Amino acid sequence: MVNENQHTCSTSSSSKSDGGSSSGSESSKDSSRCSTPVLDAERHERLREKMRRRQDSGDKWFSLEFFPPRTASGAVNLISRFDRMGAGGPLFIDVTWHPAGDPGSDKETSSMIIASTAVNYCGLETILHMTCCNQTKDEITGHLQKAKRLGLKNIMALRGDPAGEEWQEEVEGFNYAVDLVKHIRNEFDDYFDICVAGYPKGHPEAENYEADLRHLKEKVLAGADFIITQLFFQSETFLKFMKDCQAIGITCPIVPGIFPIQGYHSLRQLVRLSKLEVPQEIKDVIEPIKDNDAAIRNYGVELAVSMCRELLDSGMVHGLHFYTLNREVATTEVLKRLGMWTEDPRRPLPWAVSAHPKRRVEDVRPIFWASRPKSYIYRTQEWDDFPNGRWGNSSSPAFGELKDYYLFYLKSKSPREELLKMWGEELTSEESVFEVFTCYITGERNKNGHRVTCMPWNDDPLATETNLLKEQLEKVNRRGILTINSQPNINGKPSTDPIVGWGPSGGYVFQKAYLEFFTSSEIVTALLKVLKKYETRVNYHIVNVKGQNITNAPDLQPNAVTWGIFPGREIIQPTVVDPVSFLFWKDEAFALWIEQWAKLYEEESPSRMIIQYIHDNYYLVNLVDNDFPLENCLWQVVDDTFELLN
Amino acid sequence: MVNENQHTCSTSSSSKSDGGSSSGSESSKDSSRCSTPVLDAERHERLREKMRRRQDSGDKWFSLEFFPPRTASGAVNLISRFDRMGAGGPLFIDVTWHPAGDPGSDKETSSMIIASTAVNYCGLETILHMTCCNQTKDEITGHLQKAKRLGLKNIMALRGDPAGEEWQEEVEGFNYAVDLVKHIRNEFDDYFDICVAGYPKGHPEAENYEADLRHLKEKVLAGADFIITQLFFQSETFLKFMKDCQAIGITCPIVPGIFPIQGYHSLRQLVRLSKLEVPQEIKDVIEPIKDNDAAIRNYGVELAVSMCRELLDSGMVHGLHFYTLNREVATTEVLKRLGMWTEDPRRPLPWAVSAHPKRRVEDVRPIFWASRPKSYIYRTQEWDDFPNGRWGNSSSPAFGELKDYYLFYLKSKSPREELLKMWGEELTSEESVFEVFTCYITGERNKNGHRVTCMPWNDDPLATETNLLKEQLEKVNRRGILTINSQPNINGKPSTDPIVGWGPSGGYVFQKAYLEFFTSSEIVTALLKVLKKYETRVNYHIVNVKGQNITNAPDLQPNAVTWGIFPGREIIQPTVVDPVSFLFWKDEAFALWIEQWAKLYEEESPSRMIIQYIHDNYYLVNLVDNDFPLENCLWQVVDDTFELLN
Repeated sequence: MVNENQHTCSTSSSSKSDGGSSSGSESSKDSSRCSTPVLDAERHERLREKMRRRQDSGDKWFSLEFFPPRTASGAVNLISRFDRMGAGGPLFIDVTWHPAGDPGSDKETSSMIIASTAVNYCGLETILHMTCCNQTKDEITGHLQKAKRLGLKNIMALRGDPAGEEWQEEVEGFNYAVDLVKHIRNEFDDYFDICVAGYPKGHPEAENYEADLRHLKEKVLAGADFIITQLFFQSETFLKFMKDCQAIGITCPIVPGIFPIQGYHSLRQLVRLSKLEVPQEIKDVIEPIKDNDAAIRNYGVELAVSMCRELLDSGMVHGLHFYTLNREVATTEVLKRLGMWTEDPRRPLPWAVSAHPKRRVEDVRPIFWASRPKSYIYRTQEWDDFPNGRWGNSSSPAFGELKDYYLFYLKSKSPREELLKMWGEELTSEESVFEVFTCYITGERNKNGHRVTCMPWNDDPLATETNLLKEQLEKVNRRGILTINSQPNINGKPSTDPIVGWGPSGGYVFQKAYLEFFTSSEIVTALLKVLKKYETRVNYHIVNVKGQNITNAPDLQPNAVTWGIFPGREIIQPTVVDPVSFLFWKDEAFALWIEQWAKLYEEESPSRMIIQYIHDNYYLVNLVDNDFPLENCLWQVVDDTFELLN
Repeated sequence: MVNENQHTCSTSSSSKSDGGSSSGSESSKDSSRCSTPVLDAERHERLREKMRRRQDSGDKWFSLEFFPPRTASGAVNLISRFDRMGAGGPLFIDVTWHPAGDPGSDKETSSMIIASTAVNYCGLETILHMTCCNQTKDEITGHLQKAKRLGLKNIMALRGDPAGEEWQEEVEGFNYAVDLVKHIRNEFDDYFDICVAGYPKGHPEAENYEADLRHLKEKVLAGADFIITQLFFQSETFLKFMKDCQAIGITCPIVPGIFPIQGYHSLRQLVRLSKLEVPQEIKDVIEPIKDNDAAIRNYGVELAVSMCRELLDSGMVHGLHFYTLNREVATTEVLKRLGMWTEDPRRPLPWAVSAHPKRRVEDVRPIFWASRPKSYIYRTQEWDDFPNGRWGNSSSPAFGELKDYYLFYLKSKSPREELLKMWGEELTSEESVFEVFTCYITGERNKNGHRVTCMPWNDDPLATETNLLKEQLEKVNRRGILTINSQPNINGKPSTDPIVGWGPSGGYVFQKAYLEFFTSSEIVTALLKVLKKYETRVNYHIVNVKGQNITNAPDLQPNAVTWGIFPGREIIQPTVVDPVSFLFWKDEAFALWIEQWAKLYEEESPSRMIIQYIHDNYYLVNLVDNDFPLENCLWQVVDDTFELLN
């Protein structure tokens, strides 16, 4: 599906990491009802199975580590980063646990909420770190239960740093990571995949290297599924460690932790925390350029690339774990140089699949939230019928109320000042609103010289593929047909098509043309006259903020507008125009006028009153051209409407 | 779907009468799961609602009355007649109740079984007659419970003829039809639609015409939904009766019973039983030609047509009920002359929909039973997941065992002698079997001068639309690819296409090319080599009688091979190639070699041994070409196979 305004990273993210891992008991094999066609085997596997499959197939993978942000706006940025970096195809990401930052709380910035956002809203397979020292059994069980409830399936079990020097072992308490591993297996059986840390140079507090290896083996025997190592500076360090592990009988996957040096200070800080020693030859290079960030980063990338190559060439390494420090450039660069960054990942469905185990087989969504997938997931999070993978009759599931909606997700990524520059410091008429929409479509600067790169309904610039429709969109927006979503018709393009393709190869994808816009009641009156000529060919829904609703949808059934035909499979119809959910979307779409736009201006100001007028009086319209094999008639419908008005 | 061999009436039958009527409580409205798209509103209505809808829309309808046959072969013939006459689009049929013939039993010829066959296997809305006199309350309740269990939703409540002259009212017993109406409403609430009989000349045993009208009103007040009248000879008789009914406050539909005179003796018998008087002017015409059946029938048709025209022209009549006497010609002729016979009925789905209330929303079937829909319905009658309308993952539903299978349905319509003429009095080699298949395809006479008009897998001649494939089919059958089912690929033909269309207008239908055949292990070996070249494009399933199974179907998922895209609706995919159900079909397909063909010959005879050899050694193969927009490659696959063998 090509949405005019949709170029959110989430559309292309998570292609490789869309699997909500799940235990066998969640499978719907026993049902004689149609199960969702398995478009992607990985979608049904748990993390350790995915890792095993990649190892068996020789398909190298990578993963990305992030830490939780300090502020809400940092969280918004980090989530955008998840989307962008998710597009490269990580097998998983992990989120560290900061005991000082209330990591298990419901705060937008907590480890728990960040990890659950990655799973639920970014569709990323995610590991949540968890430390155990200085915590009671009940606290830990509480965290784990919450993690499970939020859809997390993987835990990195760590000891954590004892608070202060006077730490001593508690009898019956959690003194080491192995205690946490045992606790997880005791209390949650096989529900979680468990990762533990390995120290290629030995843990700094261990008696010695050999004793530390024995501790590691204990963690594996207690139930850990795989190991991620502390960072190291030379490939030999890891390879020796790996051989030593194997020698004492550790057979699970061991993933090297890669730390691309990104700056002098971050390196120093990390070294201090991890008590690692930086090899002299690295110090020799870095010291002289310590004030040149770009030079250090280039060196860091070079170093990481060559070390990764050595690791991969050894034949002992199947995946690479990156300590990103929440930065994109260095890690992305290393991955691109290694050829491991998936530039154009295949999409299993035209929208980003959530990684929540409950939603893993979800396969139908209304088109309305195409540019707001996180909002859709949020508002449908209480639905419990995703396990069956079909959704169509929306008459019963209740959409979450807009008032419950996290401001966090409703908020634009741009600050108020930028929005004002884009959408107008001062609006003088409805036409000045038309102008904003038109600039967003054309990419041209507005009269104050600013480009309009986002709109209340679309937080990202117009997708490049929408250029096909640009000319028509510009024309209609200029005249007050304020478009917020559209897709062209497609009559059987290959599923591998770089722009509109999705699903497994060898298939064919189809779309009905779709157009959604706000417009005045005058235009609606003319439009309705015109639509009589297009009866049965064009389905329409027209609604205003008060809920006045005009439609010709037969029996309020959903209209499938995106579908795919694949070898050896049932038909997949991932996107529908659904009359009932449209009324829920309507509330959200109208609210965005006020919440995101009107509120930029002072109360009673003319600008605010113009937006308020539009909110109160305009209609939200959607049109579907059912004759997908013919030329899209929706532009003709709009032209006829303007002609009637003249 | 065009099946090479399928031209069973059931494919085109029941287009107007496919609705299993149902009470609102059976609706799946409350489910958030996808409900089956409503392709046909009538499908969900009960009979009285359909009647009302037709009356409101001014769309005149007809219905057909049959009596149960005396013998099993008579039952086979009657069911074929249901299929053929069903194709004309009756609103319902009804089956009379013969107290002397054990009408509620499980015999193939009982009223109960014939009516349930009409519903379940012919997809016809059906009324079961039921009489009440000389029966206990428990007997009657038992009959009604059984009728309900079998999927019957409509009862014609009658008194029946008292046995002998000495009949007298039983206190607390069932003395009149009104007692039965009350009993049905008491015991079954609103489950059944109830019809009662009206007598335009008054019931012969009633005190007088007015008293009989009052009895009729009692029946309606007791809960009858509509009235069908006894036959009459002049339209005025009915119109007067209708006005008299209205005058005393009978407002439900009153349907005139039409009796096209078909012969002198049948008229005499009917008149004797019904105690009606034949008007002198009719007697005057008939007496002189009483030995000329054709002349009488022509006269009867003329008379019925003109009377029906008068009735319809009166504006008081919306439907006509025909006493067929189990004969086709006269009634069909009358209906055709009146323009009420639907020559090319629209098909709601590519296969005949069962009228059983439980199955009314069934919308997916495996392709294998395309020519044996009654067998499919029989073998899946215990499934209880049809109410949700989706079937795809067939791993759990158990198909009924073949050994349970009514011989009645497994049996060919043709007698043994005819089959021997078609399939060979004596087989001398596998090639003589190839010859039988080839003659069936080409329509040419076999070497003994007989046309092969049916095969064990197809009880009807080759469908005319299969002529497209005829040349290729002939070629491959001649060489031992013994085809039993096929469909061409279709890339978006209008849903109104006269040959391949189905579903509501304004849609597009699609098919993947399909070919199913028996063939030798030598050919299979070569075929498998060839299929490597067509990997992913062609899905195959190859199985022998022992269950050796070779397939490239991904994860044993069903492959949708017929689907339709309609305005304002979800995608419909009514036909799938399903790997699991193929193994159940395989048992049936192989058994037909023995049950229908081998057993024509004496044990140990060479002919029987040839069929037995094929049964034991051949494979059943199905092929799907997934690239439906391209030219069907299956013929190329077969050509390549033969080339490899040479």
